[in-house]
Amino acid sequence: MNVTQSFDLESWSERALLEIESSLKRWIPSDAPADLSQPMNYAVLGGGKRLRALLVLGAFEAGIDGQSQSEYSWRREAALRVASAIELIHAYSLVHDDMPCMDNDVLRRGKPTVHVQYGEAMALLTGDTLQALAFEVLTPEHSSIPMDLQAQLCGLIARAAGHKGMAGGQAIDLTSVGQRLDEHQLSFMHKLKTGALLEASVIAGALCAGVSQRAMESLKIFGGALGLAFQVVDDILDVTAESAVLGKTAGKDAQTDKPTYVSLMGLDAAKHKADVLLVQANQALMSSGLSQSDALVAIALRVVNRSY
Amino acid sequence: MNVTQSFDLESWSERALLEIESSLKRWIPSDAPADLSQPMNYAVLGGGKRLRALLVLGAFEAGIDGQSQSEYSWRREAALRVASAIELIHAYSLVHDDMPCMDNDVLRRGKPTVHVQYGEAMALLTGDTLQALAFEVLTPEHSSIPMDLQAQLCGLIARAAGHKGMAGGQAIDLTSVGQRLDEHQLSFMHKLKTGALLEASVIAGALCAGVSQRAMESLKIFGGALGLAFQVVDDILDVTAESAVLGKTAGKDAQTDKPTYVSLMGLDAAKHKADVLLVQANQALMSSGLSQSDALVAIALRVVNRSY
Repeated sequence: MNVTQSFDLESWSERALLEIESSLKRWIPSDAPADLSQPMNYAVLGGGKRLRALLVLGAFEAGIDGQSQSEYSWRREAALRVASAIELIHAYSLVHDDMPCMDNDVLRRGKPTVHVQYGEAMALLTGDTLQALAFEVLTPEHSSIPMDLQAQLCGLIARAAGHKGMAGGQAIDLTSVGQRLDEHQLSFMHKLKTGALLEASVIAGALCAGVSQRAMESLKIFGGALGLAFQVVDDILDVTAESAVLGKTAGKDAQTDKPTYVSLMGLDAAKHKADVLLVQANQALMSSGLSQSDALVAIALRVVNRSY
Repeated sequence: MNVTQSFDLESWSERALLEIESSLKRWIPSDAPADLSQPMNYAVLGGGKRLRALLVLGAFEAGIDGQSQSEYSWRREAALRVASAIELIHAYSLVHDDMPCMDNDVLRRGKPTVHVQYGEAMALLTGDTLQALAFEVLTPEHSSIPMDLQAQLCGLIARAAGHKGMAGGQAIDLTSVGQRLDEHQLSFMHKLKTGALLEASVIAGALCAGVSQRAMESLKIFGGALGLAFQVVDDILDVTAESAVLGKTAGKDAQTDKPTYVSLMGLDAAKHKADVLLVQANQALMSSGLSQSDALVAIALRVVNRSY
């Protein structure tokens, strides 16, 4: 993987994050009724790694190739819109997951959670509004983004967010507390709960770039492996990291008796599994035939080696 | 309004409702993870007047005219999909609105509310999943519905459901309890909270039928007036009807000190306002130039004269 040694992920991310944050700021209304703008801003712009948005842009840059300036321009706009939409979906899920009837968490990204700050009713509504906003962002009324791409992206994100994706995984998570899941069941839960949206990020970026079917198949495998690796590392960090570093309450999984990769297979085997998934992700990328995949390779490496 | 005297709304509704219910049943997954299918079914198929879906089909039939059989077929499928999608959005909003942190209601359509039946966490997730499902239904992967219509419908529904529509109105409602709103503020709240989705139902049906711009403008006015009339009548019924007839807890507004048209202007003036809105709605329809609007006229009449 020589390619990553010469690629500067920090500089790339910094530039990409500037674009993503300014795009997100643009979509969150400043004049929503009844001060709804405040919790929306608080939930979305309160930091976060923006892994999903970076994956969209990484996949976009891997796939974009030789378009005219005008075509590049609407394709790039579509990528930024779908990166924002996915971050809005992710943000809504965090707001709802933190609520007392779900994980009852009071700390997120080092700050009080939305329901602690604005009350439960407002948190519920904020999440609902953010989910709708994601689909508003994907369907601009005046834009050069072709309507068929808009519809494709709406369908992709809706399926990744719904019962076959994130919300379905959350339902399994909810009903599996205190149960002993085997590795297959645990993987299935995470494939839906976290994996679906991470995988959709990669696919969405590639769709905006207009990649070939063959490259798309490889990117799906990359996204799937990366999504699972992300969750395995999350479970590891819940055991090994401190709350202050993590920006959320550490040790919650053991406390609430949630099944995790660490509780299932032990710490060392979980670390090994994350490394195997990293290799799988990179192999998929190499077989995609895409030459500009440096950012994706580097993001995958960072996902597995992160400390928070 | 001679036209309504010869139009049999009961027979028309009965046929339309059969189609709507079977369409909704088709979209709710039977195999969602962790038994999520159960509360989804419970929330969506537990009765309800299906006013929004009937408005979609009424507007569709008013606007459809002289297409070839194959074109009629995908247009009708689009109308049924968007009717279902809007009912899914409506159902999700009821599930979330009934939750303890919002209206804390235990009775809906004569049955225990979703959180009473399945717990708060599952109710939260059910609502979230139903919102995503609405956009899944609007973006079929294999279908003759043109992608540009799919994208248009996604954008329309997202905006009607989000901060500029239903969720925004809900936020105003939440923060206005115990406050004295004037008629303008109350109308603005309802225009968003209930009106946006009712108006979108009419527009969506007309979009699926492919009506002219002129007819669309009239239908928007019809939808707006009808939406407001619906809410005025809702406020009247909260005072005059019994819980058993209403299928939900009556007298809640006064109990919770919510501003309503009745508390603002008195019962008689509220009834008069509903009638004025009905006349406005029908005038708009007459100026639309659409000849097949019998169902819409009859629905508007029923909205104002309903007893539950």
